[in-house]
Amino acid sequence: MTLPYHTPLPPETRDAHGISPEWRYALASKVQFFELDALNHVNNTVYLRWFESFRLSYVMDYGISDFGPTAPRLVVRSLSARFHKEMHLGDDYIVAGRTTSFRNTSFIMEYALFSNGLAATGDAVMVLLSREGDGRHPLTEAQKKALIERDGAKADAG
Amino acid sequence: MTLPYHTPLPPETRDAHGISPEWRYALASKVQFFELDALNHVNNTVYLRWFESFRLSYVMDYGISDFGPTAPRLVVRSLSARFHKEMHLGDDYIVAGRTTSFRNTSFIMEYALFSNGLAATGDAVMVLLSREGDGRHPLTEAQKKALIERDGAKADAG
Amino acid sequence: MTLPYHTPLPPETRDAHGISPEWRYALASKVQFFELDALNHVNNTVYLRWFESFRLSYVMDYGISDFGPTAPRLVVRSLSARFHKEMHLGDDYIVAGRTTSFRNTSFIMEYALFSNGLAATGDAVMVLLSREGDGRHPLTEAQKKALIERDGAKADAG
Amino acid sequence: MTLPYHTPLPPETRDAHGISPEWRYALASKVQFFELDALNHVNNTVYLRWFESFRLSYVMDYGISDFGPTAPRLVVRSLSARFHKEMHLGDDYIVAGRTTSFRNTSFIMEYALFSNGLAATGDAVMVLLSREGDGRHPLTEAQKKALIERDGAKADAG
Repeated sequence: MTLPYHTPLPPETRDAHGISPEWRYALASKVQFFELDALNHVNNTVYLRWFESFRLSYVMDYGISDFGPTAPRLVVRSLSARFHKEMHLGDDYIVAGRTTSFRNTSFIMEYALFSNGLAATGDAVMVLLSREGDGRHPLTEAQKKALIERDGAKADAG
Repeated sequence: MTLPYHTPLPPETRDAHGISPEWRYALASKVQFFELDALNHVNNTVYLRWFESFRLSYVMDYGISDFGPTAPRLVVRSLSARFHKEMHLGDDYIVAGRTTSFRNTSFIMEYALFSNGLAATGDAVMVLLSREGDGRHPLTEAQKKALIERDGAKADAG
Repeated sequence: MTLPYHTPLPPETRDAHGISPEWRYALASKVQFFELDALNHVNNTVYLRWFESFRLSYVMDYGISDFGPTAPRLVVRSLSARFHKEMHLGDDYIVAGRTTSFRNTSFIMEYALFSNGLAATGDAVMVLLSREGDGRHPLTEAQKKALIERDGAKADAG
Repeated sequence: MTLPYHTPLPPETRDAHGISPEWRYALASKVQFFELDALNHVNNTVYLRWFESFRLSYVMDYGISDFGPTAPRLVVRSLSARFHKEMHLGDDYIVAGRTTSFRNTSFIMEYALFSNGLAATGDAVMVLLSREGDGRHPLTEAQKKALIERDGAKADAG
């Protein structure tokens, strides 16, 4: 089965790779040479770059930022990751992600990485900052609605 | 037109992107966030990582190395690159490459990067080293034949 | 005051930078251009590379691995990080780290990053694997002793 | 002899490391784990990041850019590199660089990398662009004077 890279995967492709239906947005790619470290496997920090690349695409697709000159700055407040298996040159992989909850100016994402089974999991607390200065930038009602309707995200107090 | 990423492009796709027929091997991908630098464009060293990623795939496809435990070590002796235009987040691109000449234990590759026109060019002198020690590792006759027949590479004296 | 880079900092230098005494091992460096992302600040994944670079030096200094051909493979099982402030080109920083607990074939490290105050914190669960195959590699008594005596690490059951 | 990292080296330190007097500006650092690739040596693209990091410091020191919001954008038009020996984890190295010639809106730099002898050489054609738009940004007379007096750079026609 052909795996289309860098393109949101349709439900039947996610199904065929064992990705459960609560992951609505998923992107595939392939391990490149520069992602290996001296142990000849994918370096742990590379998984976090993949989650970041995924996040950029997700955030544009969900209408949270267009990364234009007036868009809010989206920064990582905290993150965690767990590595379930080693990955090697040329391995295909799929990153899936979703927002589990949000507050007025932040949201929490979960990630799962699949490569012939679950290879890693992670999460990140994302904060929206104003383009200028250090102030916070609120999510709009339309953005909150997208997170609730597409991902089943919960509104947190605060 | 859909562009299949990380997969050798067929002649008609190369044609459709204005890649002339002397480039027989070409791979597409898409600019990721971590490839941008503080000037918000693709950093110059990233083009060289793309040429390297391309080279790994090329070298396996042409039967020059399988990167297994007994394969020769393939190292860069020298390289050059010229940057024709800036690239940005999400840009699609195609790396094309070929071997123009070879000696007994080395070969010279040329690269061209296309992204709505020519974005960069480059070349590299590649050397084959024995897996153990510093000795050189010769190209086999079958490998030389592949370089001549597929790329029109010339045999250099030396 | 001059800050010596890439060299274990003496207690008086750690003191002078507000690093409390439970951090016994600390290394300084300076933000480089390639560590910035398109937001013109240090990318979140770069902090994790700094923790990794620190860890390599720490592990050699504490006698846990010499990274030679027969050394165990040291891999990250899980990690987390929290980002307290943004960092920019040319900023000096100090990474401090210690082992808080260990089991027979794994240990837990904490990291703190200082750059005019606390810039980030993190932790990692490290696992020792045999050089060949997937088996675990045990810590020696001398290694456990170093972790206890130098860092005050606790032995966990398991 | 102690080697101060990330700090312009005084003439006697450059002498002691065999760096000839025509290199007036040189910076030292140490190979980090993330700079190794799967061949367990420093990846070829990393040398180019080192040249870039050097260049940033050089350009500020010579008064060509302060990288502030109104500074010109400094981009690489072309580059080349030649690799003389392999480098490994923990190796100390010194990057030296100078400008050999300049035109009205561009200049050519040469680099030499020393690590127990000459490890690599390179050059780059640098172009100054206006902060906004694609126009060129001219070198000032004071900047040209610094390049002539400190590096012996030649003014090229054009």
